Amino acid sequence: MMTKRPFWDLVARKRRECQEKIPSEWTLSRDLLAVPPHLLEYDLPRRSGILSEDELDLTENFSATQLLAKLASGQVSSLEVTTAFCKRATIAQVALDRARFLDAYLAREGKPIGPLHGLPISIKDSFCVEGVQSTVGYVSFLRRPPETKNSALVELLLHLGTVLYVKTNLPQTAMTADSENNIFGRTLNPHNTSLTAGGSSGGEGALVAFRGSILGVGTDVAGSIRIPSLCCGTYGFKPTANRVPYGGQVQVSMKGLPGLTAAAGPLAHSIEDLQLFMKVTVGDGQAWEYDETAVGVPWSFDAQIANKRNGSLNIGVLSEDKHFPLHPPVKRALERAIAALTRDGHRIIRINNQDKDELSVAYASRLAYQYFTYGPRASMDLIKTSGEPLVKSVARFDNPLFSGPLPVDQEMEPFQKIGQLHIARQRVSDAWRQVWVEQKLDAILAPGAQNTAVGHDTYGWPPYTVIWNLLDYPACIIPFGKVSKEQDPEIMITGDDVQPDYHPDEVDGAPCAIQVITPRFQDEKCLWAADIIDRSIHA
Amino acid sequence: MMTKRPFWDLVARKRRECQEKIPSEWTLSRDLLAVPPHLLEYDLPRRSGILSEDELDLTENFSATQLLAKLASGQVSSLEVTTAFCKRATIAQVALDRARFLDAYLAREGKPIGPLHGLPISIKDSFCVEGVQSTVGYVSFLRRPPETKNSALVELLLHLGTVLYVKTNLPQTAMTADSENNIFGRTLNPHNTSLTAGGSSGGEGALVAFRGSILGVGTDVAGSIRIPSLCCGTYGFKPTANRVPYGGQVQVSMKGLPGLTAAAGPLAHSIEDLQLFMKVTVGDGQAWEYDETAVGVPWSFDAQIANKRNGSLNIGVLSEDKHFPLHPPVKRALERAIAALTRDGHRIIRINNQDKDELSVAYASRLAYQYFTYGPRASMDLIKTSGEPLVKSVARFDNPLFSGPLPVDQEMEPFQKIGQLHIARQRVSDAWRQVWVEQKLDAILAPGAQNTAVGHDTYGWPPYTVIWNLLDYPACIIPFGKVSKEQDPEIMITGDDVQPDYHPDEVDGAPCAIQVITPRFQDEKCLWAADIIDRSIHA
Repeated sequence: MMTKRPFWDLVARKRRECQEKIPSEWTLSRDLLAVPPHLLEYDLPRRSGILSEDELDLTENFSATQLLAKLASGQVSSLEVTTAFCKRATIAQVALDRARFLDAYLAREGKPIGPLHGLPISIKDSFCVEGVQSTVGYVSFLRRPPETKNSALVELLLHLGTVLYVKTNLPQTAMTADSENNIFGRTLNPHNTSLTAGGSSGGEGALVAFRGSILGVGTDVAGSIRIPSLCCGTYGFKPTANRVPYGGQVQVSMKGLPGLTAAAGPLAHSIEDLQLFMKVTVGDGQAWEYDETAVGVPWSFDAQIANKRNGSLNIGVLSEDKHFPLHPPVKRALERAIAALTRDGHRIIRINNQDKDELSVAYASRLAYQYFTYGPRASMDLIKTSGEPLVKSVARFDNPLFSGPLPVDQEMEPFQKIGQLHIARQRVSDAWRQVWVEQKLDAILAPGAQNTAVGHDTYGWPPYTVIWNLLDYPACIIPFGKVSKEQDPEIMITGDDVQPDYHPDEVDGAPCAIQVITPRFQDEKCLWAADIIDRSIHA
Repeated sequence: MMTKRPFWDLVARKRRECQEKIPSEWTLSRDLLAVPPHLLEYDLPRRSGILSEDELDLTENFSATQLLAKLASGQVSSLEVTTAFCKRATIAQVALDRARFLDAYLAREGKPIGPLHGLPISIKDSFCVEGVQSTVGYVSFLRRPPETKNSALVELLLHLGTVLYVKTNLPQTAMTADSENNIFGRTLNPHNTSLTAGGSSGGEGALVAFRGSILGVGTDVAGSIRIPSLCCGTYGFKPTANRVPYGGQVQVSMKGLPGLTAAAGPLAHSIEDLQLFMKVTVGDGQAWEYDETAVGVPWSFDAQIANKRNGSLNIGVLSEDKHFPLHPPVKRALERAIAALTRDGHRIIRINNQDKDELSVAYASRLAYQYFTYGPRASMDLIKTSGEPLVKSVARFDNPLFSGPLPVDQEMEPFQKIGQLHIARQRVSDAWRQVWVEQKLDAILAPGAQNTAVGHDTYGWPPYTVIWNLLDYPACIIPFGKVSKEQDPEIMITGDDVQPDYHPDEVDGAPCAIQVITPRFQDEKCLWAADIIDRSIHA
């Protein structure tokens, strides 16, 4: 029988193993560890002296799409690109071997191995890579052997020609907006290390923002791609569930119960790179060939936008929910976006979705909460078996009950409750369909959250992201401007003891963002509209 | 309080109401009611004298696609076409008013109102039409008022320009392969009235075969489109669930519990007309605008077949399951199809799916049976409230347990059982994915059933159709030849007391069929492959 060792031993060993994979010359000198909190502004990578000018150039000045063109033509090698991103993300030998292999392939065959030839891509730790241990932030997982199989998406990405070079951090339970766990510690926001990087794909948000990754993969069941994106100032896209292969990730809960379905999707530096990721992973329906849970629907960009007006969009604007009032900089970003879009001739339709339960953000949040908390839950067991303590954001696990009663009686017997939850969700879904059709919407514009990145462990419940998971609508985060304590100097207190307050001094300079949404399976249209909106607001 | 009247009074009134809608000159004379059982061979419509030569021509010699061209050019009017099909189906004033409206529209505007302009379409009684009572074969439904809303698909079909002129019969409970109920009686097979027309969309199968409908709509959760098709010798297509709007039908059971998802789809006289139906209802994702449960995925025929070899297909052939042996004429039709396809240069791959639970037809049947029989079931309550007796096919409700044990313990508590059923289904789904990818299949060729149409109330369990519902794979029935007692003179006894035996004299002359299948969401590819196969076997 295995003796139960104190969980810290396991953690210490894991950290040592991770550290040993990093060449010593890629490690920050001790004096650089005491840097100011604004890592990006401080330009830590340049100051570190670890990256050459060429490497700084490669990691800072090109999109994934542009790098792929350089890689395919042989103008740069995969080894050069991968080394640059490895240094910036500070990882790993295996990736460089893969990069050498791909460079040799291109030299020998005279053509790229696939549409993502040679490009390093970062992935969340919940994905399995053969030979590498997955943790999902649970110390108890450190007792597990390395994975013997790749997740479906990992398999597909390798087939497409990518270099996998880093797995990124997430919260204990993967269900909070603060990417902290007892194994790797806390992921910090590179814009300001005293703010959360978001979660659960917080490692991706921070690394992409740091340009330690040009294209990253997260997962999202309540906002886990979009929250790190809006906290860290990156682009992020949560597709309709099952368009990108999700299968074969580390499993932590019972499958098969009706609920919100998580989706895998990209974080990047541009809409173009989000589109690239979706186009090549979805492809002509090939996703299904890697994962039976993926739908075999082709990426039909042209078909979806064929009948759309040229240039001018009908853009619905989501109401601010009275239970989840927007922090002033978030509201300012949204109104600035609306002004730019109006200037460019787009039609803005203010949706009154506040007064009807089926359309309200607060009601959707409460319904989502019921889905997240019914049935068997494995997370506490996974924590208990190692004896590790709860991290703070898990311990305070928030709920949106202050905004009203639960849609369905909590105490119903299982079958009846499943039926009632389904009816409630279908009502929400049908009400939104009607709004869409009646208003002839092309897209919805909304905040991504009440707030920007906030102090650690204060993020609260994510109503403005989770509503689109409940509906399974694709949703895209576009970074847009920064918090300015000069422009918005007044403190705002939410007063509900759950959602974060606005403190101008604390969040000054943090990124702002907007969110663009379309109906289920209209992912192509979502990224098409997001591109038009992105150009308009940044013009 | 409503007094409870004997159920026969309700039935008598309904039948009278239906009868009154039919012009007396369209009613068969009494002596024609005593016709031989082979109605098609006997050519009842011509002998009845009710249809003119032009009307016989319109109903017999054109596809829906061809009729639409005539309608759009004004060569024939919708009133002429609708009258002809109304006579042949023997219905209704409202349809003729609609036809007159559409004819006037074309004359006034100089263009069709939509892609199905003027075409009469028949629909299963489970769909709701405003002002018309729906029954789903339950006498208790006769106490309900007429519907106040159209089903989503009805709304869409009207928008596309169709004329709705008849609702068609189905079994009590809509869950058997014999379309009999206490309201309208039993639907007979026009090839031979002593054989079942199949079910549950048996009214559609019989009416389309009779050319009383050029294009009909059924629903299928275990074979309910495909069984009537193969029994009556029509083409029939069960799409991936939720591609065609399914919502707003008469609801008879609790929704939201994980299970097999029913799909709406067409029955017709050609692959071309099946394609027409799918292309215009799915459209550019518009299905979602009518029904939130529909996926907003465009009909992307070109995208799905873009990378496919020209001409030559890789066709997997499903194993005959030892528990469900094929009747000799069914086996003969399948082998004749294989010979034709081989002759035309297609690659035939015999799949060994017998020896592995995950791939076996029998195991899939038992798993499907568990999904159909767990959780709350409303059907018996709906029967009891009227006091009507069970029809014979409902009373004998078969199960496939003779083929082996149930995959999941029946007595588990709900959440656990849902999880275990999910795991079992996912294993099946993943095993089929692997076969597909490893063998590089374009389509699977399979029987549609062990048997052809058989004597009333003897159909048994539908393993060769339900497996594709369990997987949610699109599947197409192609009629192919007839039973010949000369060629297959030997009786075959299944010996399991559930599945039907083969009696050459009884089924001589009944239609035979094959089934073509592709993976989930590859509906476009399924109809593309079915078209190639159809041309090859009928060359």
